[in-house]
Amino acid sequence: MRLEHHSADIVASAHAETALPVARLQGELGRTTGQLRFFAFILREGSFAGVQFDSPLPERLPAPRPDLRQRRIGVGPVAVFGASNFPLAFSVAGGDTASALAAGCPVVCKAHSGHPETSRLVAIAIGEALQAQGFPAGIFSLVTGSVGADLVAHPAIRAVGFTGSRHGGTALLAIAQSRRVPIPMYAEMSSINPVLLFPGALKSRGASIAADFVASLTLGVGQFCTNPGLVLLPRGTDGDAFRDAAVAALSQLPAGTMLTDGICEAYGAGVAAWENAPGVRALGRGAGAAGIRQGLPALFEVSMADFLAQPMLQQEVFGPAGLLVRCEGSAGFRQVLQALEGQLTVALHMDATDHADAHELLPLLERLAGRILVNGFGTGVEVAHAMVHGGPWPATSDSRTTSVGALALERFLRPVCYQNFPAELLPEALRDGNPWNLPRRRDGRAAQ
Amino acid sequence: MRLEHHSADIVASAHAETALPVARLQGELGRTTGQLRFFAFILREGSFAGVQFDSPLPERLPAPRPDLRQRRIGVGPVAVFGASNFPLAFSVAGGDTASALAAGCPVVCKAHSGHPETSRLVAIAIGEALQAQGFPAGIFSLVTGSVGADLVAHPAIRAVGFTGSRHGGTALLAIAQSRRVPIPMYAEMSSINPVLLFPGALKSRGASIAADFVASLTLGVGQFCTNPGLVLLPRGTDGDAFRDAAVAALSQLPAGTMLTDGICEAYGAGVAAWENAPGVRALGRGAGAAGIRQGLPALFEVSMADFLAQPMLQQEVFGPAGLLVRCEGSAGFRQVLQALEGQLTVALHMDATDHADAHELLPLLERLAGRILVNGFGTGVEVAHAMVHGGPWPATSDSRTTSVGALALERFLRPVCYQNFPAELLPEALRDGNPWNLPRRRDGRAAQ
Repeated sequence: MRLEHHSADIVASAHAETALPVARLQGELGRTTGQLRFFAFILREGSFAGVQFDSPLPERLPAPRPDLRQRRIGVGPVAVFGASNFPLAFSVAGGDTASALAAGCPVVCKAHSGHPETSRLVAIAIGEALQAQGFPAGIFSLVTGSVGADLVAHPAIRAVGFTGSRHGGTALLAIAQSRRVPIPMYAEMSSINPVLLFPGALKSRGASIAADFVASLTLGVGQFCTNPGLVLLPRGTDGDAFRDAAVAALSQLPAGTMLTDGICEAYGAGVAAWENAPGVRALGRGAGAAGIRQGLPALFEVSMADFLAQPMLQQEVFGPAGLLVRCEGSAGFRQVLQALEGQLTVALHMDATDHADAHELLPLLERLAGRILVNGFGTGVEVAHAMVHGGPWPATSDSRTTSVGALALERFLRPVCYQNFPAELLPEALRDGNPWNLPRRRDGRAAQ
Repeated sequence: MRLEHHSADIVASAHAETALPVARLQGELGRTTGQLRFFAFILREGSFAGVQFDSPLPERLPAPRPDLRQRRIGVGPVAVFGASNFPLAFSVAGGDTASALAAGCPVVCKAHSGHPETSRLVAIAIGEALQAQGFPAGIFSLVTGSVGADLVAHPAIRAVGFTGSRHGGTALLAIAQSRRVPIPMYAEMSSINPVLLFPGALKSRGASIAADFVASLTLGVGQFCTNPGLVLLPRGTDGDAFRDAAVAALSQLPAGTMLTDGICEAYGAGVAAWENAPGVRALGRGAGAAGIRQGLPALFEVSMADFLAQPMLQQEVFGPAGLLVRCEGSAGFRQVLQALEGQLTVALHMDATDHADAHELLPLLERLAGRILVNGFGTGVEVAHAMVHGGPWPATSDSRTTSVGALALERFLRPVCYQNFPAELLPEALRDGNPWNLPRRRDGRAAQ
């Protein structure tokens, strides 16, 4: 793992380019290598290859059933657009790159303009690792500059992994779809990650939830795609107490330096849009003033009716700003959820007394988001098999999969069926005797 | 299975509307019910639900790993556009409908204009079956008329299954992608299903392959998406002998009635385009003349150079017409394969002496088609777990899946992750104790 040889340089560069704290970047580098090991585990386990057989029935009438064997192969070269906010864990050597390489696809990564030097150093480390393992150098390349559109349009590219803004994602998606040969694009774009505060939890521990909420909202200057930007909570005194506790906590927190000038400007514009929206009330800001390229935490409140009347209030404000929507009880939750666009996560804060209400909303929540979590916040995306970091449009461009977790690899595979192949021409994965020792299915059931 | 109650009426209607032989339609009805049973088997087996857990690590530092559980749920209502050429097995109660219903998705089927009355009868049978099982009637609806574009654009529709022409498929795909919320569309559109005749097989049994080829080419008046429309074979005397045997066999076969006037007109236009293409030589036609709505078999030949110079020769001619491309040896095969668009199938006819040549081409073939078959033809698509009836663009709009076989169901599913859920709120599929007895994975491995 050559990343580790260069870790000091890489972390120093990322710190200089993104202003992210060194400790956070060290953790992120660990996550990057952990992610590579995760996909290595999946490769060794082998289920990803999707090997399945149908037993031939040579005597069947009116026609024999042939020998059918299926496996999955890589779709071909993948273009990867890394995220601004994870210069290590979701950029050049990040999740999309790791999953595409694991699927057997060469990767062409576009360096993010927010951390070009870090991208270059990481690419060097990948190149060294490939060379050390004897892989062809062409398996991985880094391209720089304003080449994103050309990269997606290039005939050799067969799929795209993207993490970024809705604007950028939809523009590239249009290119991917209008090629002579259209290609799949996995864009993770935009999510405001609703938080539902149920009455029981609000009453029993509203102040503690408020502290946790503010911590999650402002973590990393709010620059996480799973940042909890929208809170649904009931009208009434318990909701008021939560609000007041959140404002009090937020007002202690200073401005933080954001990743890029562009993100900082967009944050300012987003907050200004909320400030000027009819019915939206500014509750409070963080401590002090924002310096150059800094974002100051901000909290707003709006009635359910005013929220529902203004779809623009659903637009993601990337940074430490949150909007509280005061709902008319649990029925109000339903009404707001029905009006929401697709999300990466939705978080439920509830006690046992709230379970019945939550249970009724569950079918709606499942249709809304890729991950539903209880008594927590979506920030912190575990690299694990069952993780879904995805969700309905516009959270992602393809809700059938995830960019973190085991299914991330499967995005870059397609099935091929081999019918009546002579033994010596079968790929190893499909040979009798199972030389690669892969999990297989026969006639629809797990087999030897 | 209420289809069986109405089978006589359904078959009689389909025969009247499509001119397909009664025996073929009876077989097709059997395939339809077989397909429903196939997906019922998959549902009972349960792997489709994709249940996987990660074990929580409450003591882990710096942060605990949460309890993560994943399953897949239906994407929502699916619009199904049935095929003209399988009025029973791939239309109203066909593969797309069966797989979407199995995935838990309501289906809105658009009746094909080639067999509206058959569609109506089959929809009645489905309605009766749903009623008998106590399902809500809204699970299945049939719509008729020129409503395809409106159906794909409708906000309630969440995915589309389509079998038809490239023109129709791409038009609907553009609508699916330009919706406010874009949706996935699985369009099976266009394929000429290359057949490769290797020298050894050609020498040892060219005449018998020629007979089988002509039988496959003209089966069902050539109206199969897996119809072998393109044959690559070497120049030289063995190739000439194959050609002459194929022409002789073809010349014995009369015209056949085609499915619709439109298909018959398009067939005539396609054959005329070949007749007028530079370098394309007409080898022979079937016996007699074509009557009203009839297609007469036709065989053409072209040199490799002329084929490569005219991409229009790759356009599917839907019907009993084939084009022989005379290649310069095995290197010629490679050159032609590299120039071909994506295909549903590619068929290799070879003896043991050809295996080395075939082995070299295999990576190219895998990238070209969804199914590679040896010493057979692609007509006859087995409903089986390992089947792939799919392939790279323009064979389908989404090469990551198949419209026949086990993966067909998975097209209409998306994953949802449940994090730290209280036991009583977990869906049954994810509960401790496994009440539904589903195959599960834990920490990336098959588990109890």
